[in-house]
Amino acid sequence: MNIVITGGAGFLGARLARTLLQQGQLSLAGAAPQPITRLTLVDRVAPATDLMADARVTAAVGDLNELLKPDRAQTGAIPSDAAIIFHLAAAVSGECEADFDLGMRSNLDATRALLEACRALGSAPTVVFASSLAVFGDSPGQPAPPVLTDMTLPTPQTSYGIQKFIGEQLMADYGRKGFIRARNVRLMTVSVRPGKPNGAASSFFSGMIREPLAGVKAPCPVPPDTAVALSSPGRTVKGLIRAAEASDADWGPRTAINLPALTTTVGEMAAALERVAGKAASALIDWTPDPVIRKIVATWPANVNAARARELGLLPDDSFEAIIREYARENPQAVTLALRP
Amino acid sequence: MNIVITGGAGFLGARLARTLLQQGQLSLAGAAPQPITRLTLVDRVAPATDLMADARVTAAVGDLNELLKPDRAQTGAIPSDAAIIFHLAAAVSGECEADFDLGMRSNLDATRALLEACRALGSAPTVVFASSLAVFGDSPGQPAPPVLTDMTLPTPQTSYGIQKFIGEQLMADYGRKGFIRARNVRLMTVSVRPGKPNGAASSFFSGMIREPLAGVKAPCPVPPDTAVALSSPGRTVKGLIRAAEASDADWGPRTAINLPALTTTVGEMAAALERVAGKAASALIDWTPDPVIRKIVATWPANVNAARARELGLLPDDSFEAIIREYARENPQAVTLALRP
Repeated sequence: MNIVITGGAGFLGARLARTLLQQGQLSLAGAAPQPITRLTLVDRVAPATDLMADARVTAAVGDLNELLKPDRAQTGAIPSDAAIIFHLAAAVSGECEADFDLGMRSNLDATRALLEACRALGSAPTVVFASSLAVFGDSPGQPAPPVLTDMTLPTPQTSYGIQKFIGEQLMADYGRKGFIRARNVRLMTVSVRPGKPNGAASSFFSGMIREPLAGVKAPCPVPPDTAVALSSPGRTVKGLIRAAEASDADWGPRTAINLPALTTTVGEMAAALERVAGKAASALIDWTPDPVIRKIVATWPANVNAARARELGLLPDDSFEAIIREYARENPQAVTLALRP
Repeated sequence: MNIVITGGAGFLGARLARTLLQQGQLSLAGAAPQPITRLTLVDRVAPATDLMADARVTAAVGDLNELLKPDRAQTGAIPSDAAIIFHLAAAVSGECEADFDLGMRSNLDATRALLEACRALGSAPTVVFASSLAVFGDSPGQPAPPVLTDMTLPTPQTSYGIQKFIGEQLMADYGRKGFIRARNVRLMTVSVRPGKPNGAASSFFSGMIREPLAGVKAPCPVPPDTAVALSSPGRTVKGLIRAAEASDADWGPRTAINLPALTTTVGEMAAALERVAGKAASALIDWTPDPVIRKIVATWPANVNAARARELGLLPDDSFEAIIREYARENPQAVTLALRP
């Protein structure tokens, strides 16, 4: 089985790739497990060396919109035997808000081109689309309901959220037409991400933990009572794989499912950091407000009811403290402070 | 004030044009009424001669996607002084289901090109987008709720419905960004339309009344108990104009509003026809089922709660019999049977 991951050099894509290579097989849509013979990682940059060292891994490096132009044979982004495509590549929320055309190109045009490339295969491959909690939006004239379910009408208040929601619609129709098997999955805010800050407005949700653990100051640009719906990298990847493995009957309708979320506040996140690594860590959080980021984050509701995900056996993380300890365990080289037991 | 109507040679566009020319002025978004100095009708064919005879009318004739290519100066589809654009042009539901690419081009690409042309003006013109009841869809795995409100999550079960719902999302974001003033309006099934059948799956909702009144047989391809949410041409045009005239505060959120609907069944429609024109008329309805049309129509729920429209003073038609009589009054040349008082 050949599996494609767009955004395969990104943090989540690489983690998904490593998990898939490690498990070595996948039960596509409820069928018997098949060995993963090839993993095609599509991204602007080459995958990490550990991934490239695996004989099953192929890279398609370049601009996604260029790679997906109809004469695909040259680029190999969507190989003719692709059985599953995890579509994670996207411009992030902050970028899309700052540069409208970039967001439309990277998120809307690229998703449509990807779906066209999948349709052209004629084999109705399974597409798992990484949508986002950011489809939900809270605005003064239209407050989001207190709890968001799988059937809540999204009212996105960012271009990123609009583009993701449009992606869900395209997915649903390409699925209904039989061009693909559609799996729309809404990711929660992923924390703690290793590595460096990115252009996402949500980047600080990881940075405010990751940087202090490395002894480095980091901004938290929103007030302590800001609520957030979080998921660890591990649970997020689990959700993506479950989407590919679920049978059509277990999956249900082609509308998106919310992945499970741990609802907490940035104040509680800072307190958990202090429990794990002491005041030396929490004192490194810089609480200077950033009105631009605050405005974006404030539109993302935090209370998510993930009923369909629960039925698929997907559960939220136990606690944010557990998430921090998991991060520290997985990234020992990035933690310089001493941790409390 | 220069007003643009795409689909301006179509039935609804032409009726909107005549209504606007007759009233002569418009209160744009709650401002003081201004005279309508120019009406630009954009369509693949030239507008009717009565419209072209009005000195205020200009035509832009051609393929909409071609007319909207960035070098607009040559075509005049979106003049630099356009204050309001009523975007009615679309490929209809039956066409889009039969030809996926046609629908994507005519409904998604053209709407996006229109919004880009409006954004390029720099004047944030008001765009009234004719969305549709067809965004709602009933599917075996995801039945629509018994009553559809303005906040119901649409789950379109046709490509046309998906494309209209995506149009609503684009409208909302172009509005939020300040590129346009966005007015998303969901039209109900319009009946009785004069003229000829078209490719819409809903075409028979007019034909089953219009043709018998002219002494001609007409198909009703769905069972008598099929429910439908209807609006007369007059009420529909009223809703479009109200959308342009409502102030931002009166209008509310950028999500779409449902226009008011008279909920009835095709059996009741046939009975109303019999009350108006006797058995001579109702006997001309051919009840031979068409499974393709039935399948599409069956996904359109019929119980619509149009709360926002009601707050704007928009109400459904009184009865289907009143709609038939209005049609007969407005189109005496198309009625050959004697009507009962």
